[in-house]
Amino acid sequence: MSREIDYRSAGVDLDRGEREKAGFRGLLESTRDERTLSKLGLFGGLYAVPTGVLDPVLVSSTDGVGTKLKVAFLAGIHDTVGRDIVNHCVNDILVQGARPLFFLDYLAIGVLAEGVVHSVVRGVAEGCRENGCVLLGGETAQMPEFYPAGEYDLAGFVVGIVPRDRILDGSAVRAGDVLLGLPSSGLHTNGYTLARKIVFDASGLGVDDPFPGLGATVGSALLRVHRSYLHVLLGELERGSIRAMAHITGGGLPGNLPRSLPTGLGAEIRASSWTVPPLFRALQELGSVRDDEMFRVFNMGVGMVVVVPCAEADLVLARLRGSGEDAWVLGSVVEESGVHFI
Amino acid sequence: MSREIDYRSAGVDLDRGEREKAGFRGLLESTRDERTLSKLGLFGGLYAVPTGVLDPVLVSSTDGVGTKLKVAFLAGIHDTVGRDIVNHCVNDILVQGARPLFFLDYLAIGVLAEGVVHSVVRGVAEGCRENGCVLLGGETAQMPEFYPAGEYDLAGFVVGIVPRDRILDGSAVRAGDVLLGLPSSGLHTNGYTLARKIVFDASGLGVDDPFPGLGATVGSALLRVHRSYLHVLLGELERGSIRAMAHITGGGLPGNLPRSLPTGLGAEIRASSWTVPPLFRALQELGSVRDDEMFRVFNMGVGMVVVVPCAEADLVLARLRGSGEDAWVLGSVVEESGVHFI
Repeated sequence: MSREIDYRSAGVDLDRGEREKAGFRGLLESTRDERTLSKLGLFGGLYAVPTGVLDPVLVSSTDGVGTKLKVAFLAGIHDTVGRDIVNHCVNDILVQGARPLFFLDYLAIGVLAEGVVHSVVRGVAEGCRENGCVLLGGETAQMPEFYPAGEYDLAGFVVGIVPRDRILDGSAVRAGDVLLGLPSSGLHTNGYTLARKIVFDASGLGVDDPFPGLGATVGSALLRVHRSYLHVLLGELERGSIRAMAHITGGGLPGNLPRSLPTGLGAEIRASSWTVPPLFRALQELGSVRDDEMFRVFNMGVGMVVVVPCAEADLVLARLRGSGEDAWVLGSVVEESGVHFI
Repeated sequence: MSREIDYRSAGVDLDRGEREKAGFRGLLESTRDERTLSKLGLFGGLYAVPTGVLDPVLVSSTDGVGTKLKVAFLAGIHDTVGRDIVNHCVNDILVQGARPLFFLDYLAIGVLAEGVVHSVVRGVAEGCRENGCVLLGGETAQMPEFYPAGEYDLAGFVVGIVPRDRILDGSAVRAGDVLLGLPSSGLHTNGYTLARKIVFDASGLGVDDPFPGLGATVGSALLRVHRSYLHVLLGELERGSIRAMAHITGGGLPGNLPRSLPTGLGAEIRASSWTVPPLFRALQELGSVRDDEMFRVFNMGVGMVVVVPCAEADLVLARLRGSGEDAWVLGSVVEESGVHFI
């Protein structure tokens, strides 16, 4: 009967969805650890609370990749955005002092295009392995009419753990503490609506064109993976030498540094202490963007800020540099709230 | 300078985003409990692991509202989808034996339309309060170009807890066990791409039109909130009378019941044991949908299936009915895998 309607003709292919899901099995298995109690296919993922953590506190965060995804669509590269979102979420709980336990992804897609879902989830699994966290579950939602063919949205959720007396909530920060800057690997996952407008709309560049002055294509410059700061900072965290941290995401330094400081204290940033990477300078020039807008939208080369006691700053800096991290003294904590560039 | 580009002209309004966020404070506060250690604005939410749970296991799940959202957009009703997603996620971990601890939402929106974000998050907070779980955090992503004005995607993420010896993973199920059915409250959050195609496209109905034979408008029939089974089943869980549970979501009874049964066992369902609600029958008739397709896409009036030992079935049923739940004997566990309708 020709009027008969079924789910597939409405745009949702349950069989294909099941096949895609079966393809995730190996990816999820590759991230398992000894506390993972569930197998793929249960309604919820099971994870035993680690023993030996005194007064354990769970730390959880969620975020999306944002419109960086549009660059991935243009470039046809789908295996980096998963690493972006895992690293982003891991950094967000790291700044409270937590190490990640497990991660779940939410992938909403219009049409199940061949290989795209698998590439995305492969990137998520790779990100999880890199951060030593378990990909405990996820959802792939087929949502025709929400997303055009080949497009999708990707969000992530992470749960980590920290002993209660090691939580970083800003309360330990004192005026005179030193702010150490750690370099970003690119735009990370913020400011892409502005960056794409500048690059693709205002400048008329294509994703395969060379990015002016960068020696890289537009696509590869904009898709650089949001780095994770877990491994470089975990040792310092365990040592107890860190008083607070700020992950520099949407809102930039002025929007994120105050989130890590107690009421009444602020940050003084020495603008001359680092060279803003060429990618940001090129974006600013191409778009004639004001300085303050650049610093509010982009990380400007500073991906993470670590607050340490003044007396320990040199030692921490030396250890970070010794491990290959290009950290520097970015500024200090002052008794005037807000972020002040000097 | 007229060529100057800023984030706002690119479609992202950081100030407004901050104001919306400030409006969430009261909503999050309304869900706090004594183990919630964080306040709004930190990078990650902090939640102390409950003490007194022997060998505690975390159970986590993520899901989206799916294209039920399109009905909410048409109806201009944004405060029910949040309850949908909380209840959906809570049910998904309940079937492993877990009670919820905390929830996070991911809301991706094209343009911050007046009141819409607040309505959505208010619904999420209400859902959290109803399930006694904390709204620990969330993300509101402004993604112009992804979503038209007034449209958004909404996903949720829940973490619950269960003592290790109380995990329901299907291993306790035996042939001869009884399947109890619990009624759904409507389509819950599945099958909306097909339902919308039938109702809006094929039948030409509008969201404010009466739904044929239902005594309700199309909008109110399709937006009925996905119910939570937490409160009605928590007592039985604690009593240890439940061997397994299946939340009937995408894939229907045939797709979800086997997820709760051990390999080699199946389910025999007495089709005459319940009356499929008029909403499903009307959809089937309007769309000339085949029987097997209906059962694969929709819950058909069965929102949750509970597996109990045969000897305890009458007692459990009596207690559920005594608490006002319209449960019934749906079928039994048999030694033939798959789901068999008799």
